[in-house]
Amino acid sequence: MDPVERVRVRASEEGAEVEREDALAVEEPLEIRIGSEDGGPVSSFVTTMRTPGNDEELAAGLLFAEGVLENRSDLRGVERPKDPRIDPELKANVLIATLEPAAFDRAAKLHRGTVMGSACGVCGKTSIENVIPADRPPLTCRFTVSPELLYELPKRLRERQSLFARTGGLHAAGLFSSAGALQEVREDIGRHNATDKLVGAFLLRGELPLSDRILLVSGRAGFEIVQKAFAAGIPVVASVSAPSSLAVSLAETGGITLVGFLRDRRFNVYANPERIARNARSET
Amino acid sequence: MDPVERVRVRASEEGAEVEREDALAVEEPLEIRIGSEDGGPVSSFVTTMRTPGNDEELAAGLLFAEGVLENRSDLRGVERPKDPRIDPELKANVLIATLEPAAFDRAAKLHRGTVMGSACGVCGKTSIENVIPADRPPLTCRFTVSPELLYELPKRLRERQSLFARTGGLHAAGLFSSAGALQEVREDIGRHNATDKLVGAFLLRGELPLSDRILLVSGRAGFEIVQKAFAAGIPVVASVSAPSSLAVSLAETGGITLVGFLRDRRFNVYANPERIARNARSET
Repeated sequence: MDPVERVRVRASEEGAEVEREDALAVEEPLEIRIGSEDGGPVSSFVTTMRTPGNDEELAAGLLFAEGVLENRSDLRGVERPKDPRIDPELKANVLIATLEPAAFDRAAKLHRGTVMGSACGVCGKTSIENVIPADRPPLTCRFTVSPELLYELPKRLRERQSLFARTGGLHAAGLFSSAGALQEVREDIGRHNATDKLVGAFLLRGELPLSDRILLVSGRAGFEIVQKAFAAGIPVVASVSAPSSLAVSLAETGGITLVGFLRDRRFNVYANPERIARNARSET
Repeated sequence: MDPVERVRVRASEEGAEVEREDALAVEEPLEIRIGSEDGGPVSSFVTTMRTPGNDEELAAGLLFAEGVLENRSDLRGVERPKDPRIDPELKANVLIATLEPAAFDRAAKLHRGTVMGSACGVCGKTSIENVIPADRPPLTCRFTVSPELLYELPKRLRERQSLFARTGGLHAAGLFSSAGALQEVREDIGRHNATDKLVGAFLLRGELPLSDRILLVSGRAGFEIVQKAFAAGIPVVASVSAPSSLAVSLAETGGITLVGFLRDRRFNVYANPERIARNARSET
């Protein structure tokens, strides 16, 4: 399926009207189903709206971010349904992930509804503890990137995005080496999906954790982006826009350097600034 | 809880560094629990990351968008947990919605996992049919807005946003009369939440459907934004950014006029243009 759809639109500009062609990001549901390699029924895990393309990576990355997959070997296979009676168009929107039995049990637990008689409560603190339990150490890998290198990253990401994405239709997530080389880019209408596809690509190759790497996302950095980076072991997360309060708290606890508003040769550091080299012209 | 948190950041600009204050959008989880007014246990329905404020509206709007609430009387009450042993900070992130029994049953059905032996499949078409079943008519209310009126809306929305939101930290959703008067604005770190809060505000007042109204969102218009507008009966949806392919298809089927890239005195019409007045200077 093409990630871009061309349509005719009526454009209005300063009161003048014209019919013209416009490109839309394709959005279609992807249903991720899970089964255990020891047999038994296949069940629906989640349906997510996504831009078609790199679907296997999206399924792998999403199952990893949710804690269902702990490593590559937990995922025995991910494929389209085989039943010949199924419409090919529907098949294109379904993937079946075959899991190692312990991973399947973790997925089933996530799905079991919890019934509570009294409030146990949720807050940012418990959210962070769910991501980083007391026995899980923060990311400690040590390397330093210069401000000059960071300034360059948005341009390098844009150059590798499709023309369409650059014009605003899709979110992008890029993974850079500590020297600033762009290793992979993934795009999607959902910014969480773009990051899941990116992490999923490395998971499928058995290349996690992504130590000494920099994640750059084209949108905001909310809690879930930092959560996905922590799961993948990425020590530096940068966004061209604003982080949220909880993203900053999670980055602090998780040992992640969080950079925001990275654009036009400027940025802010919100957590763990020790991985950003201080400049000779520093005023502090 | 304040929707904005002030933090110290290390800012880098053109190689120079300075410590300064920055404002972050607060992001905290809200757990929505549901109970039936005829008693029985309370169960967790969903936990969503949101910016605190207008939480009751968010709960009502989200339950309405999910089809759990069909009208105001389905929601008998929405309140914080009463147990005095619960930490006030946790209580601030939990709401219990007491539902009319039929609504509670609908919620329970949504939560029941479906186990499938063979693929039944999902696609954009089935997604649209789930939102607009064959027996549900498209929105037909007839009114016309002029391009000049549309051009004005982003400015009116920005004027009513908090200073913080205008600087990029929060998404906004605004509801306008057909004459362009801004009736309500809601803000959130999540654009779906901003729209849920907005629709929830009118639901709680018993003022749905929102016929003859215009919804303007500060971000993209994806499938779910149009879905929420359809549920609320809003016939014109405008966004300052791009729509998705499935949002356009749903708007076409649902009788919703969909406007995108509404900024700098221009816009594109993607579906049902008949509610946008044609201009004398039209070139077509």
